Parts: sequence; structure tokens; C-alpha cells
Amino acid sequence: MRIHEIGEFGLIDRLTQRLQPPDTSVIVGIGDDAAVTAYAPGHHVVTTTDMLVEGVHFRTDTIDDRSLGYKSLAVSISDIAAMGGRPRHAVISLALPVAIDVERLEALYEGVRDVCVAYDTHVIGGDVVKTDGPFVISVTLLGEVETGRALLRSTARPGDLVFVTGTVGGSAAGLDYIEHGKGLDVSPDTSDHLLRCHQRPEPQVRAGRWLLASGGCTSANDVSDGLASELNEIAKMSGVRLVVQAEQIPMHHAAVSYAKQRGRDPLDWALFGGEDYQLVGTLDPAKAGDVQNLFAKEGLPLTIIGRVVEGRGVTLAAPDGGEREISPKGYNHFAE
Amino acid sequence: MRIHEIGEFGLIDRLTQRLQPPDTSVIVGIGDDAAVTAYAPGHHVVTTTDMLVEGVHFRTDTIDDRSLGYKSLAVSISDIAAMGGRPRHAVISLALPVAIDVERLEALYEGVRDVCVAYDTHVIGGDVVKTDGPFVISVTLLGEVETGRALLRSTARPGDLVFVTGTVGGSAAGLDYIEHGKGLDVSPDTSDHLLRCHQRPEPQVRAGRWLLASGGCTSANDVSDGLASELNEIAKMSGVRLVVQAEQIPMHHAAVSYAKQRGRDPLDWALFGGEDYQLVGTLDPAKAGDVQNLFAKEGLPLTIIGRVVEGRGVTLAAPDGGEREISPKGYNHFAE
Repeated sequence: MRIHEIGEFGLIDRLTQRLQPPDTSVIVGIGDDAAVTAYAPGHHVVTTTDMLVEGVHFRTDTIDDRSLGYKSLAVSISDIAAMGGRPRHAVISLALPVAIDVERLEALYEGVRDVCVAYDTHVIGGDVVKTDGPFVISVTLLGEVETGRALLRSTARPGDLVFVTGTVGGSAAGLDYIEHGKGLDVSPDTSDHLLRCHQRPEPQVRAGRWLLASGGCTSANDVSDGLASELNEIAKMSGVRLVVQAEQIPMHHAAVSYAKQRGRDPLDWALFGGEDYQLVGTLDPAKAGDVQNLFAKEGLPLTIIGRVVEGRGVTLAAPDGGEREISPKGYNHFAE
Repeated sequence: MRIHEIGEFGLIDRLTQRLQPPDTSVIVGIGDDAAVTAYAPGHHVVTTTDMLVEGVHFRTDTIDDRSLGYKSLAVSISDIAAMGGRPRHAVISLALPVAIDVERLEALYEGVRDVCVAYDTHVIGGDVVKTDGPFVISVTLLGEVETGRALLRSTARPGDLVFVTGTVGGSAAGLDYIEHGKGLDVSPDTSDHLLRCHQRPEPQVRAGRWLLASGGCTSANDVSDGLASELNEIAKMSGVRLVVQAEQIPMHHAAVSYAKQRGRDPLDWALFGGEDYQLVGTLDPAKAGDVQNLFAKEGLPLTIIGRVVEGRGVTLAAPDGGEREISPKGYNHFAE
């Protein structure tokens, strides 16, 4: 079905019907000039926004529409998690080619509902417009965080320990599997894990909340552009140097075994792949043990991968004692 | 200058430098995973979002880049005004063709600063991405409104009076002037007014705040799609009929005189043109006199144009006693 058959308002009705019903924090939802929302007393509002363009950020041959809807919000939820906040309310704008199928958008919104249900988030509004160009999705997500407690990138100090939650490199491995893995003998467990990493990443809201509650986290960032880029961001914003042990960087055995089959170094995916949506940051060394115990008790993975020293930049230390500087080398949107 | 010469972060730096400095409500601004903002106690957050696509919503031959920056935010500020709220914080995402001039974007951000200064609003974040298609601007604006006091579209009651602030039809007259007026003998005052209406509309935040404070406003909407569309929206959402006197609809003499030169009926521009960003709504008849006196004292124009009765839809009454139904007939993005 094409949009002109049901009109702009017909489309909005169909998409809205796919969302979970609003909770009591939504005072005025979809349908007025603006939405009105309530946040918990003693909290500030946390806001992040991400824009995704078909052909640049996603392709129909590497992600299905429902997963795309899930992931469109998940990337923003991850930003809120990196501040130690709780996601609450989203607005979604779509620039649509006139010939796009309504069924594609309905599937997209089913994925939006999936991630909203999983993360207690509600869509409160949006905009739907026509474009002669590619499909564009713009998401702005509002969350809440305790006043004065947000986790920043700029507050790491020499002596702190560097941590990462979960495993990294899985999303890049998943994309490689989608593009090159079909002829290989890959176990269903491995392919399931890799696809999930790329298409249905799990923003670390619980980890961010516990990092904040612990009082031991001195800085945090989410892994959207690759560990190298995020570590450099913390180093730059905090005015410190991070020294990371290569062999400590946590990688899932599925990514490691798949990399072997492909003759690739999984560390490259971990450092430069991105889209893992884990949290990376620093811990006060006096409280690091408590934080590790807390995470163990909550069943949340947390790995110490290095330390903070005076200086600038990021050093990768190899088990043999060799050291090399790692540059941000993230994805540059505007490279020639 | 092209973006690849300065990179994504170079561009963000250049654009950020053009913005007004943050105020104390911005706890964490541009540069971290997300922004953190504070709102006044006893207030809810009001959120609205708008997406603009080059070739659909704007064209370089009808608006300069600085005015485009101004207007991109002004349309969202108008939505906050229609809720009776105060705009506070914006995030702006841009999908950019790789060949776009950096100077164009700098001019755009000077216009963003213009409107932010005028309306005490601060840009707290955004996203910058590449596209193979047209330039896309996505704005999400957060404001605040006193708890339980937001002005809605759905609360007009039979017996209420219908009002509009300022004059309507000027933006459509301005667009007509840009496209067809060059050869006509139009006074500088007239052309200045019409261009300003189209390129630098003034969202009615002060009017919205006084409507809320007066306690006499029973519904409100902003005139983005044309008076006919907005009146129908209030009628539909409130389950009432609006009867409007054609000769009471306030039009600026510049639009009226220009329409005469063009052989057009200015009422068509007022009803179906849109982009005037005035407020339209309803008043409690017992308090309408007080509201009018308050607006007169504050130097804010307010005109009573009709009344609310039982029923559905919108009636336009002519001075000769004739009546006709007016349909929303707004701009339909997805018409064939």
C-alpha cells in the first residue's frame, strides 16, 4: 500500500496504533501541537538525537525493517545509558519517498514498540514528510537522571581504571557475516549471536544506572563509533591518557571464532567497528572492587581493560610489552 | 568550503561557535553523549518536532539561508506557544549533501542564533550526517509549561468565542510576492512586510503565555497549515462546530493591497495559505472581555472572529448572511 491511498493522517494513525499505550508520565501525547511530559522530582532531563539515512546508515539488504525500527531508537537509548540516565520519551520524524510501502513503515514501528517495551520508553510525537531523496529517520529521545549525577566523558582522572561492559566487536562481525558469511560453515549459535549484535543491540541502561548508583564511575561513553574512537573521546575531553591492554578487551567467542574463519583480527572489529552500544569509561580505583562486586551480583558483565595516566591520547599495550598509539579512526561521514 | 576539508567535528565546531552561549538551565550542553537540562519546578516539559526537506518545505530561491535557520526553529517555537509554554532548548539534526557549502550552513546557524536570542532558547545538541538526497533539517524543541495548564486543541466548548492573534494570510502573500511580484509596483513597506511574514515569522510565545495566565483560554492551536485547517482541527478534537465571520478575519493591509494588485482574494491566503504562526483558539465568553483588555494593555493584537456551537466542522459566514462549509484543505504531503 502507498501512502497517498491513506493520506498523512491515515499513516500516522496506523503507526500510532502499533505503539505501546502511554503511561502516566505522558500528560499530552500524540495529536496536539506538542507533547507534555512529567519527569521525576529531583531529576534533570537528558536529551539526545540521532539521524539515520538509508544507504548511509542502513541498507535493506543488511537489516529488516522491524530490526531497523528497534535499532533506530536503541542507538539513542544507548546515549542516555551512557549518561547514567533512564530513557522515557521519544519523538520520531520520517522523511519518506512517496513510493515507500506502508507495510514497511508498519514493520518499522513494530520494532519501535519492541524496543520501547524493553526499555520502558514511550513515543510521544513526531513528523512525517515527503522527500525526493532517500528515507531518513530522525529520533530525539528524552530521559531523566538524578540532579547533578550525570556520567560525563570529561571527568576521568589519572589513576582511574578503564572498564567496558559486555563484549565489543560483535556488531562489525555481524555486518561482515551478513555481507560475506553466507558460504561459510558457521554454527547457528554463532550466526544468531552475530546477527543480534548488529541488528538488535542491547543498550546498557541497567549498567549505566548501576554505574551511577555505585558512586564509583568517574566517566562514561557508549560504544557507537568503535572502542578506539570512544576511548580517544574520553582522553581528549578529560585531558588524560588511557593505556589499554589489548588482551583484556572482551570479545565474544562467536566473534572470535567467526574472525578466524574469515582470516580477520577480531581486535580490529572491537577497536574500529562500532555499533556495539556497550559502555566504556573509568572507575575510581578505591571503589572499583565494589563496582565489580555489584556488577557480578547483578549479573552484569564488566571488564577492567586499562588505566588512566597523565598525558593525551590512547595507548594500546600488547601482551609482549609492545605499545602503539591508537587514533580515533571512527567512521568519517564526510571523507571524500 | 566543502565539509570534507574540515571534517564532521570541524563543522560542528564552526556551527556551535555561531550559537549564543548556554544559560544556567543547560547543565551539560553540546559535546557529550546527551545534553542535560533543568526546568522550572512545578512545570512539565513540552516537546515538539518538525522536519524540513529542501525542495518540499523550502527552496533556495524563496528563502535565504539565514532566514531558513530562523524559520526552522520558529515553526517549532510556534508549537510550544500554542501550548501556552515557554521554549527552552533545541536539538538540530542535518542530513547534508556532501557538496553543500559550509558557508551556507554557517548562515543557517546565524539565523538559528537570531531566533534563539529573540526567544530565549538554546541549542543543546544535534547530529550531522551525509545524504545522497536533498538537504534535510530536523528540529526538536523542548519547552516548559506550568503543570496541568497546557492549552489543548480538544477543550473548546459550545458558547466559547473564537479568536486569532495578529493577522493571517501574510506568509502566503509573501510567497506569492517572491514568485510573481517582481514586476509589480509594490511599495517597500508592503514588500518588507510580506517578505518578513514568509521568511521571518514571529511565533506568538508572549500571546500564548498571556492566554494561559488569563485563565480564559479554552483551546489553542498555531496557524501552520492555514486557518481553515487549524479551525477544523479544533472542531474535530473538541467535538464542536466553529462558526467564523469572514469579514472579521484579520488581514494586514499590505496583504490586502498586494492581493488587489494580483487580482487575488486575500481570504484564500488567510484560510488556506498557512505558515502565519499566529495562534487561533477559543475563549470562555465570561472571561473574553478580560482577555481582550489584558491583550490591549500588553500591546498584543487579538480578534474575535466567531463562536463555538454544537455540531461538527467549520462554517464560514459571509456579511450577506450566506454560509459555507470550509474543509481543512491544508497541504497534503502525499497527494499524487
